[in-house]
Amino acid sequence: MTFQATVLTLYPEMFPGPLGVSLAGRAMAEGKWALDTVQIRDFAADKHRTVDDTPAGGGAGMVLRVDVLAKAIDHAREGAADRPVIALTPRGKPLTQARVRELADGPGVILLCGRFEGFDERIFEGRAVEEVSVGDIVLSGGEPAALMLLDACIRLLPGVMGAASSGTEESFENGLLEYPHYTRPQEWEGRTIPEVLRSGDHAKIAQWRKRRSEDDTRSRRPDLWERHTGVRVQSASGAQHEVQDD
Amino acid sequence: MTFQATVLTLYPEMFPGPLGVSLAGRAMAEGKWALDTVQIRDFAADKHRTVDDTPAGGGAGMVLRVDVLAKAIDHAREGAADRPVIALTPRGKPLTQARVRELADGPGVILLCGRFEGFDERIFEGRAVEEVSVGDIVLSGGEPAALMLLDACIRLLPGVMGAASSGTEESFENGLLEYPHYTRPQEWEGRTIPEVLRSGDHAKIAQWRKRRSEDDTRSRRPDLWERHTGVRVQSASGAQHEVQDD
Repeated sequence: MTFQATVLTLYPEMFPGPLGVSLAGRAMAEGKWALDTVQIRDFAADKHRTVDDTPAGGGAGMVLRVDVLAKAIDHAREGAADRPVIALTPRGKPLTQARVRELADGPGVILLCGRFEGFDERIFEGRAVEEVSVGDIVLSGGEPAALMLLDACIRLLPGVMGAASSGTEESFENGLLEYPHYTRPQEWEGRTIPEVLRSGDHAKIAQWRKRRSEDDTRSRRPDLWERHTGVRVQSASGAQHEVQDD
Repeated sequence: MTFQATVLTLYPEMFPGPLGVSLAGRAMAEGKWALDTVQIRDFAADKHRTVDDTPAGGGAGMVLRVDVLAKAIDHAREGAADRPVIALTPRGKPLTQARVRELADGPGVILLCGRFEGFDERIFEGRAVEEVSVGDIVLSGGEPAALMLLDACIRLLPGVMGAASSGTEESFENGLLEYPHYTRPQEWEGRTIPEVLRSGDHAKIAQWRKRRSEDDTRSRRPDLWERHTGVRVQSASGAQHEVQDD
């Protein structure tokens, strides 16, 4: 089955962009996923092809019209009712690797990319659109976020990474950061590969990696650690110690 | 001053990609930012141009060699010592809008994009490379993340968005999600624009927006709300209420 991605955008020329190259590009050439774009502007009702208007209540920027967006979504959904419609917006739910896996296991996605100040809020309930954020930063539009979401899905499609790299040992797959990697040369500018990794003792290596994965998650991402363990990392006054969450 | 972006990658053809179009594309044409790429493979030492090797301690995938990466970084840094070197990696510190602003205020960035299993860990200390993550998902490489980071910076460069949209009312700029937007038509499929936004009463509108911004952040992103206020939102047993953090 081919994973089908439909992107609703004012800039169809941004796609497939980086996804036409390397791993995603090969997977596309092999028919493992397919992409089509819908130009939102084609669904404007007037001869000027207007897609936006000034924000109700005043303020800077322009807002994408709900009626135009709805027509574009209805068009994209024809014959694709089983695919979720996802809008990329900083107000959305943060994208997780678990959600990426769900999407990759499904028939595909319909992605809605905004520009300007954003979407008319009524589109989300009016068309059951899922709001997703790919990070706590503001972009010029949803397109770079859509490319990222698709890249994350495509690498998980059957046959794309090959059997050797199932992707299950990556960061976030078990709720933790991945352990650090090393490769030859053994010594570089006085820095050596940790001794244990050269020991050939598989049990010790597995133990070291698990420990590093846990330690690094706790120190670098106390938020992830808390979600994983239910144990809160407090960093008040610089010292980092754990407390039971009450 | 031109914001200079240098991207170290195995796939230079992915750039500028979506950044050659629309807002970022126009800003580039106007000289507000510039992009150059460095092919990491050009710094391999052998005739096969090898950039990676198997992970020390075993496991799937391939790891980018520290000696090759160091040479590529040293090359990129020549005459650009004032620009931070940032590796895009899921083990990194989550990118924030505050860090994006700092970067946009500076002379530019040198971005290091990995492929395969990742970087030899020694490169980060050995070359003072900052590790940054753009979201809790795993990509096929750092390139889509680099495009996103650059997009976020470029829209903040002087003159790119114009005076009307200073970007200071966006999500995350004040630590909260932005309030929702609406525009004409007044009524769409029985859904109307909130009355207050049509009142013309600027004080009431500002108050409503502030309230929605706070309410939406608390319900959608308790993590942001806690960082903003120091007050923890607990959602145990479905009911969401606040408790003082002790």
